[in-house]
Amino acid sequence: MRKMNVAIVGATGAVGTQMIKLLENSTLPIGTVKFLASKRSAGKQLSFKGETQTIEELVPDSFEGIDLALFSAGGGISAKFAPEAVKRGAVVVDNTSHFRMDPEVPLVVPEVNPEALRAHKGIIANPNCSTIQMMVALEPIRQAYGLKRVLVSTYQAVSGAGNQAMEELKQQTRDFLAEKPVDEWKADILPCGGDKKHYPLAFNALPQIDVFTDDGYTNEEWKMINETKKIMEDDSIKVSATCVRIPVMSGHSESVYIETEKTATVDEIQEVIAKAPGAVLEDDPSQQIYPQALNCVGKKETFVGRIRKDPDEEKGVHLWVVSDNLLKGAAWNSLQIAETMYEMGLLK
Amino acid sequence: MRKMNVAIVGATGAVGTQMIKLLENSTLPIGTVKFLASKRSAGKQLSFKGETQTIEELVPDSFEGIDLALFSAGGGISAKFAPEAVKRGAVVVDNTSHFRMDPEVPLVVPEVNPEALRAHKGIIANPNCSTIQMMVALEPIRQAYGLKRVLVSTYQAVSGAGNQAMEELKQQTRDFLAEKPVDEWKADILPCGGDKKHYPLAFNALPQIDVFTDDGYTNEEWKMINETKKIMEDDSIKVSATCVRIPVMSGHSESVYIETEKTATVDEIQEVIAKAPGAVLEDDPSQQIYPQALNCVGKKETFVGRIRKDPDEEKGVHLWVVSDNLLKGAAWNSLQIAETMYEMGLLK
Repeated sequence: MRKMNVAIVGATGAVGTQMIKLLENSTLPIGTVKFLASKRSAGKQLSFKGETQTIEELVPDSFEGIDLALFSAGGGISAKFAPEAVKRGAVVVDNTSHFRMDPEVPLVVPEVNPEALRAHKGIIANPNCSTIQMMVALEPIRQAYGLKRVLVSTYQAVSGAGNQAMEELKQQTRDFLAEKPVDEWKADILPCGGDKKHYPLAFNALPQIDVFTDDGYTNEEWKMINETKKIMEDDSIKVSATCVRIPVMSGHSESVYIETEKTATVDEIQEVIAKAPGAVLEDDPSQQIYPQALNCVGKKETFVGRIRKDPDEEKGVHLWVVSDNLLKGAAWNSLQIAETMYEMGLLK
Repeated sequence: MRKMNVAIVGATGAVGTQMIKLLENSTLPIGTVKFLASKRSAGKQLSFKGETQTIEELVPDSFEGIDLALFSAGGGISAKFAPEAVKRGAVVVDNTSHFRMDPEVPLVVPEVNPEALRAHKGIIANPNCSTIQMMVALEPIRQAYGLKRVLVSTYQAVSGAGNQAMEELKQQTRDFLAEKPVDEWKADILPCGGDKKHYPLAFNALPQIDVFTDDGYTNEEWKMINETKKIMEDDSIKVSATCVRIPVMSGHSESVYIETEKTATVDEIQEVIAKAPGAVLEDDPSQQIYPQALNCVGKKETFVGRIRKDPDEEKGVHLWVVSDNLLKGAAWNSLQIAETMYEMGLLK
């Protein structure tokens, strides 16, 4: 069996770090591994399976001889370098939003739409973190009972905004404990690095993730709306979203409300979730069992609980959906796409 | 003008502390003030308008000569002592859930249903914190465009669970910064003091407030559902709720989704909120202006922003509603009920 040469673009980031760990235990037949990053990080050393590797500066020719390139270094980097990787024969799995809504690019959650991978032209897009875990929970329900409508409010962790945002939250937390007045807390990154104003997240809830569009929605909210329809290949599903950052390090929680086509009982939906690939049912209110962000960290699954019917709407159902945003929301779903392609014979 | 003698039951609690501060600046013509608490707190001293007062132990005869009694010491205390206060001629404003759904007891948000006060029989109930701020935001919209449906996901602060819960969150935060493993964090109170299991709230989101009922909802969720219908005097409004505690000290945030009877534009709804009593419009996405928990602390108003239409549902509207849960959610709404009764001639 031929071995596969893999490149990781953005190896030093919050997601890249998780990708390296996962790749060490991957089922892929890995030959060489190359870590690529910006000039700033080039020359630094990382360990892979106990061996030290030097990070190389990302240039177009970095992809010579590469079979699989996992990108997680921002949309601009993907825009510029993913086509260069494809030109040199690599398959790219891109964790940024850059190619997601491109009709030529499959947008894939392996438990939901693996068949979409067959149409790829070199680049496969990894969906947004908050979308992925919702898809794992909703697709099995859609298969069994149909899906007319989705309304989601998110409780998102700061690691989705990167390592520096995590440090910023920690420092604000120290400032709070030291009883510094809020207006002296340092806020240079959150809610969104590229935006004009910055606010503290510690002991706060910020209803802004990514920048606003002209219609009053944020980009993050549009990602959840548009990506859901693309992944489920159904524009008739009504979807709306409110995305909120809360002071959690890792683990996104979501209050998801759906309306199904057919009426289903709570027991039936619990059974569907219990059997669903990638999902774990954690739902026993009598024992106070429900998914929690702190418990999901380091796990690949999506945890689902608090399943209950809307008392005033026969086909309305609530779910509480939790997953590690750096794993299923990013690094794991990306690698899982590659492993699935390999199993399907699409990566040779 | 005759002066009014006021008793505060639960004077040492998180809400009681705020009540005392507000009472110092109240428009009521206050004569004497009496602080009542459990045997444990009796004998301690508190200051009121610069004078030291000794806390007395709560007994039935504590209410002799009292005109107004503000209760905030738990449902059991209200059940036992509120009727004793009424028997002795006092009007009771009760901040616990004990009497809220009693058809003989008005449940009042002064901006929404002050006329309900006229039917009181001695006890007036203060609604649940998370319900009150939602009512301030939704009633003006209901008046203008009708209200068919409410779906709410809350982001609730820990101060609603009392002083000890706040201390528990602080200690867990210290443990996090000291890099103690999560399973060594102390959790004896949250999510709910009276329940069997306790979980850490620091850097977590807990989808449980109050205890569970047999149907998988929590009491807190039922409070939001039932109290909304009672306050708006309309059982035909469809209401459902998911209540979640997050690591915030004070200030509840709510992602509220509504469907109106008549179609309204975002501009029209913004205008309605801007003119609504007790509400403040904070809604300019282009300038990243939206309500934040950290900013609402110490303020009596309810802040409303992120107003936008559901892209797939003409009459669907999102709002982000934030208020200080100890003030408008508890102490201020209670005192505001008393002041409103005084203005209406119902408290003499």
